[in-house]
Amino acid sequence: MNDGLSIVFLIYDGLTPLDFVGPFEVLSRLPGARTTVAAPRRGEVSVAGGKLTLVADAAISNINAADVLVVPGGPGARTLMHDAAVTAWTRDIAAKARFVASICTGSLILGGAGLLKGEDATTHWAAKPLLEQWGAKPVDARIVERGNVFTAAGVSAGIDMALLLAARIAGDDVAKAIQLRIEYDPQPPFDCGSPAKAGTEIMRLARDLTG
Amino acid sequence: MNDGLSIVFLIYDGLTPLDFVGPFEVLSRLPGARTTVAAPRRGEVSVAGGKLTLVADAAISNINAADVLVVPGGPGARTLMHDAAVTAWTRDIAAKARFVASICTGSLILGGAGLLKGEDATTHWAAKPLLEQWGAKPVDARIVERGNVFTAAGVSAGIDMALLLAARIAGDDVAKAIQLRIEYDPQPPFDCGSPAKAGTEIMRLARDLTG
Repeated sequence: MNDGLSIVFLIYDGLTPLDFVGPFEVLSRLPGARTTVAAPRRGEVSVAGGKLTLVADAAISNINAADVLVVPGGPGARTLMHDAAVTAWTRDIAAKARFVASICTGSLILGGAGLLKGEDATTHWAAKPLLEQWGAKPVDARIVERGNVFTAAGVSAGIDMALLLAARIAGDDVAKAIQLRIEYDPQPPFDCGSPAKAGTEIMRLARDLTG
Repeated sequence: MNDGLSIVFLIYDGLTPLDFVGPFEVLSRLPGARTTVAAPRRGEVSVAGGKLTLVADAAISNINAADVLVVPGGPGARTLMHDAAVTAWTRDIAAKARFVASICTGSLILGGAGLLKGEDATTHWAAKPLLEQWGAKPVDARIVERGNVFTAAGVSAGIDMALLLAARIAGDDVAKAIQLRIEYDPQPPFDCGSPAKAGTEIMRLARDLTG
């Protein structure tokens, strides 16, 4: 059913690595998945404020189509959302894709590509005003699914989103098996993963953290 | 308080990327953290069955100490747990570290280093018999904290473990702020992230999945 499913992940300087690797870990396990890690330029990509280096298999100029396009976020997205080459490529690939997904501020790149005008979407809690600038209607939700476009909230939300997307692509049982395989039975030590739960003092601390 | 905290992550061919990147995303945000991504050899490291390439900043032979040593898992751990150079290095760094942490089958490398003899520990659900071979006492828990050694269950459990470790290092409020920053308010689409919850049919499917 999903034989030869091509999944393209956009990575770039200033990416938040978990935005990318969470969904990669889920979606690359789909039976028949062929993943490509693409960047504006092929080769080394500096992420996490220069603390980690990833390697892009391909330049986006060499990618003409994908069944699934995944756009993670990170501080670099605030630059890329204005990059004409990246947004034109995103628009072109998205137009032909079966599914398009963003994580965190990856939604800003979809926004820059004109894909979210008038649409419900989510993003990192700190980036909602920016998302609105692209004409999207920010929703307080961990995952927003509208047609074939999935947007996820900040960073770790990509794992939840990717499992839902895996279910849409390959059925619930395959998604459940992937969830078990990555032992995703979350037990966070604190219940403060959203602004509503965290309170003002933790919000202030979180805004002061770098990255 | 934790100024200049050195955190060394061991990566290697055959790593499961989320095992590494989950904790990296959490711990690299600690105030004063200086992270090093180390591997048996410096340079490119092939992970996720060859689907992703990471870059190691340093060879382990050039790392003599760490405040925190983090050992993620993956299929390659079943080879590395028998690698004398890696296990001797792990034992040496662990002996001087403030904290030692493993994720998933990273615990097998700690086991190979002789660090878990007679100790309670956890690992990926599929790897518990192997952990026992190293003299550890496998516990059904997402995180096991014994003294300064933390072991986490499979893959995604590293995020929960790293938040707890962050709290031990820098206090609950900093850990909570990191949790909010990465918006870790998990909402998995299914409740099947552990063998007990998944049932036999999903277990069978999960065992058949590659990776």
